Amino acid sequence: MKQTLTIVKVGGAVVEDEVQLAQLLKDFSAIPGRKVLIHGGGRRATQVAASLGIESKMVGGRRITDAEMLSVVTMVYGGLVNKNLVARLQANGVNALGLTGADIDVIRSHKRPLKDGIDFGFVGDVDRADGQMLSRLIEAGITPVMAPLTHDGQGNILNTNADTIASETAKALASIYDVTLIYSFEKKGVLSNPDDDDSVIPTINRADFERYKADGTISGGMLPKIENALSAIDAGVSRVIITLATAIDGHSGTIIS
Amino acid sequence: MKQTLTIVKVGGAVVEDEVQLAQLLKDFSAIPGRKVLIHGGGRRATQVAASLGIESKMVGGRRITDAEMLSVVTMVYGGLVNKNLVARLQANGVNALGLTGADIDVIRSHKRPLKDGIDFGFVGDVDRADGQMLSRLIEAGITPVMAPLTHDGQGNILNTNADTIASETAKALASIYDVTLIYSFEKKGVLSNPDDDDSVIPTINRADFERYKADGTISGGMLPKIENALSAIDAGVSRVIITLATAIDGHSGTIIS
Repeated sequence: MKQTLTIVKVGGAVVEDEVQLAQLLKDFSAIPGRKVLIHGGGRRATQVAASLGIESKMVGGRRITDAEMLSVVTMVYGGLVNKNLVARLQANGVNALGLTGADIDVIRSHKRPLKDGIDFGFVGDVDRADGQMLSRLIEAGITPVMAPLTHDGQGNILNTNADTIASETAKALASIYDVTLIYSFEKKGVLSNPDDDDSVIPTINRADFERYKADGTISGGMLPKIENALSAIDAGVSRVIITLATAIDGHSGTIIS
Repeated sequence: MKQTLTIVKVGGAVVEDEVQLAQLLKDFSAIPGRKVLIHGGGRRATQVAASLGIESKMVGGRRITDAEMLSVVTMVYGGLVNKNLVARLQANGVNALGLTGADIDVIRSHKRPLKDGIDFGFVGDVDRADGQMLSRLIEAGITPVMAPLTHDGQGNILNTNADTIASETAKALASIYDVTLIYSFEKKGVLSNPDDDDSVIPTINRADFERYKADGTISGGMLPKIENALSAIDAGVSRVIITLATAIDGHSGTIIS
């Protein structure tokens, strides 16, 4: 029987909010056994960029990453956010190790080609995550803390969506572990009514998703999140949970299976 | 007989200069066997701070690190500089892993107390470097790339001089390896005449140093660098070399023994 592994993805909004972040770090530290934390940091990047006089341009919720913006996200994701999370987890007794995809070549990507005429700039689409290397760290008692940055193997850092880092990492580890992937955010789960925070849909499978998508129950930024989740399930991840950042107990929220 | 290990420290001025940096990375990548890279980044931090409207205050060549400046150095050292070095080394076939002292708890420090009435702020004086953990990484074929940041074990990142990171790391690894520590910078070595770039002093031991210090041959920022070097020798490091960043061949420069 495979050992269990819990992968928690925490978004930028939670990383920004000290009360939510402190609770999340406490809960994450309390998860027994093998685990991985994956973080965003987009809001902080937008703030730092603005302070430097650099405008953030988004298309479909995704950041256009020119050379200046690449420096900003490398600083904010790889340095400010990642290293503070690592230091705080260490204080909680978790032997955290901050990683970008470049570190020990753990996630390789390629620069995204033009899409519908849009140049996203220094954005990386993932080619492979190295599950064997991550597993060696995990078996040594280390908890990887992964920033949403990858590399192309030719010396360039690339900006990569944190949800994608989470699903690709989960897939790469699914052949080695019984993986639970938790996407934590500021809602209690996938809502059937966006105006009612308690209207959490308890479970969603592929057929449910197609129906909810067709009738408009699920829309916007939740669509790529659930697509990512379902593709992780197809690739062998045992379960994906979408839940509140302060309720990563493995039971609350929406379970995708 | 112990395995050899080469530790190279590269300063901020070299990290800034693309021609020197490219040569250094090529030479570092060509060093056979076990190795560690330690980097500064002070000039870039000063630039980024200035762009953010934050003034850099220095006392005796050391940066005063208030909360805002701590965010800047965490971004610049831990993110921008470290991750770009890691990505470029990966492109050279070196399996680099970026580390601060917080990562896998590799260097623990404490906040420096007031010194002569000067509050250096969030600056960390090193308590211990974990040679066993670094050795485990090195034996797995990994090349640590260390940023000048440590942590206090209570959740706080602290700013720590890169020369100190280099000497403390060298000392911690000296019981395991036959360690050569190379301080690379923009001069050919320790000069007997600061106006003559070719006046390199080939070797310096403790007695030489005391004499050069007394007669004023060695002064300023070179004094703490050689003090660090001699204390590393006292702690079991085999040799310390102070040399040009584009000549880290293990022979050129000033050898401290």
